[in-house]
Amino acid sequence: MNFITTKDDLLHSVNIVQKAVSNKTTLPILEGILFKVMDNTIYLMGTDLEIGIKTELPGKINSQGSVVISAKLISELVRKLPDDDVFLELNENYILNIKCLNSEFNIQGQNGNEFPQLPEVHSDKEISINKELFKSMIKETIFSVAKNENIPILTGELIEINDGIIKFVALDGYRLALRQGKINDNIELSEVVPERTLSELYRIASLSTLDSVQISHTKNQILFRLGQTHIVSRLLEGEFMNYNQIIPQNSTTKVKVNVAELLSSCERASLMVRDGKSNLIKMNFINNILEIKSNSEMGTVNEQIDVEIEGESIKIAFNSTYFIDVLKIISDEEILLEFTTSVSPCVIKPNQGSNYTYLILPVRYIDH
Amino acid sequence: MNFITTKDDLLHSVNIVQKAVSNKTTLPILEGILFKVMDNTIYLMGTDLEIGIKTELPGKINSQGSVVISAKLISELVRKLPDDDVFLELNENYILNIKCLNSEFNIQGQNGNEFPQLPEVHSDKEISINKELFKSMIKETIFSVAKNENIPILTGELIEINDGIIKFVALDGYRLALRQGKINDNIELSEVVPERTLSELYRIASLSTLDSVQISHTKNQILFRLGQTHIVSRLLEGEFMNYNQIIPQNSTTKVKVNVAELLSSCERASLMVRDGKSNLIKMNFINNILEIKSNSEMGTVNEQIDVEIEGESIKIAFNSTYFIDVLKIISDEEILLEFTTSVSPCVIKPNQGSNYTYLILPVRYIDH
Repeated sequence: MNFITTKDDLLHSVNIVQKAVSNKTTLPILEGILFKVMDNTIYLMGTDLEIGIKTELPGKINSQGSVVISAKLISELVRKLPDDDVFLELNENYILNIKCLNSEFNIQGQNGNEFPQLPEVHSDKEISINKELFKSMIKETIFSVAKNENIPILTGELIEINDGIIKFVALDGYRLALRQGKINDNIELSEVVPERTLSELYRIASLSTLDSVQISHTKNQILFRLGQTHIVSRLLEGEFMNYNQIIPQNSTTKVKVNVAELLSSCERASLMVRDGKSNLIKMNFINNILEIKSNSEMGTVNEQIDVEIEGESIKIAFNSTYFIDVLKIISDEEILLEFTTSVSPCVIKPNQGSNYTYLILPVRYIDH
Repeated sequence: MNFITTKDDLLHSVNIVQKAVSNKTTLPILEGILFKVMDNTIYLMGTDLEIGIKTELPGKINSQGSVVISAKLISELVRKLPDDDVFLELNENYILNIKCLNSEFNIQGQNGNEFPQLPEVHSDKEISINKELFKSMIKETIFSVAKNENIPILTGELIEINDGIIKFVALDGYRLALRQGKINDNIELSEVVPERTLSELYRIASLSTLDSVQISHTKNQILFRLGQTHIVSRLLEGEFMNYNQIIPQNSTTKVKVNVAELLSSCERASLMVRDGKSNLIKMNFINNILEIKSNSEMGTVNEQIDVEIEGESIKIAFNSTYFIDVLKIISDEEILLEFTTSVSPCVIKPNQGSNYTYLILPVRYIDH
């Protein structure tokens, strides 16, 4: 293996595939990145066997071959190289020689043939989605994925496509996040993708200059493609919760509220209760005023916000964290809160349109 | 106690005094900030009994009094307040009422009279030093302070004033950092200030808009004053090492080298040996070339830099960390390295002037 590339191209490719490399692996070869020259193409690849990332590296090829190099070492090394051409040559005993200006490295690598292959995902149906929409859909739902693994299917997000509408759904038993958008492909899909895959996809999409992401899948694997970068992930098995049944269709109280004001008030109210387990804040919607209260042995907080209430007054209590998580990622100026009773979930919707639906379960309200 | 101030002024003052508050204290009252109104002045104060910081808060005073409030809670709370006037009033049972627009807090405080007093530092001799010089002197020496407490006096820096020259000296047995500058006061001083005091001073000086720092001291305490902010610290007892004896006065090899090139090469060379204990890199100065080598089971690095050598060729090895620490904070483009033998310290000096002197002990060079 012998090729010439540049520091910038090498750094970009290493940064992408490194996201699939696991730090906690029992297979030492998986701590490495595969460098492989074949069919006039330079490939880099990393995998932890759950997610695999392959990308192409531009460069001038002199000869074929492959080697696995420690991801940690190569990423730090490339970052510190001078900004110039980089010459890579594989020598005997899997030693990779790297030259760049007056720097020369000989790195002990491992046999490239021992690196696991990426599963092939061949599918006729490839879905194309705008990259910025794709990133928003991940960012605005991923915080609601279940953190513990009691119900494994909830450690991923449902990606559902139907009638030209794509939906990302995450729920953890206390809250639900649903984000939807339009796509042009007339295709059906309903698969559950692990949280880690989505968070790495978000980072890789942020590094890419391309406009769209292509998605295809087989029974057990899903492939996301950004130009010459392929991200293959296993799918979670099992039935996702029927989320439509959980979202209340009617309400007795509708409240229009400014997002920034509500977020600031929730954050201040949560200061006193943050060390507690419940993070309990109490909301009282009455006479176009929202009063938020919290108290602990540290002290009390009392907040008031002007809101527009339609329907009945209501007193209801929440874990402030769940409210703050949602309010932080909403970019709209105003939202609608919908309630039925003080023991039913609060639905958070856009004031206009239907891009997102968030649902938060209340906690028991005890009046002091 | 009753006064009105603004969110910005309150935040600034809390940020300053909070730097003296310890998180690991056995005296719960020291986790708090003292708010005290006396003699038409609002004071804030924090201390961990080693360092104490007092500052004045601008505001309109209605009545006197004092209370101690959790530093963690008040700093987070003030940061999240709306940008407006803040009304503070002390009520019964040391409960502090804070109002700002539509937010109201009642915080459980503690009796202000139980808070320790700052030691008084009365001295006729007050030294004035330019703030930027003061900051540079800290930044460019503090990394050489001893990390372990085997020799307690080395956990601080010597501040020495003589003949209008101020010197900061730090040394840890493997290296020495000396930075000097001019001051106008004709005064003598030789005191050892704890590392923590200097690092907090650096941060407080960075927050200040003032141009100079005033220094005065008694037998056991030193006072740094930035306008209305007073930082009092204990001094370290004992005799500081006679650093002049350690610095070689002659050399047999003088090398002029570009700082950025040497830093990059040292960083790359240290990649292979970083996990090792010694971080050993080998330097070979010959024929106006500096060759840097390192090797481990991970691989080898070979770096070459053009330099100007005056005197004898020399082979010498170092812990790369010590070289990198120094090179990172030098703002000059070029420096001089001076050597005598491969077991004698390397002296690092400016190419022109005498603002700083660094000294690094070599490690044993074994040729492979």
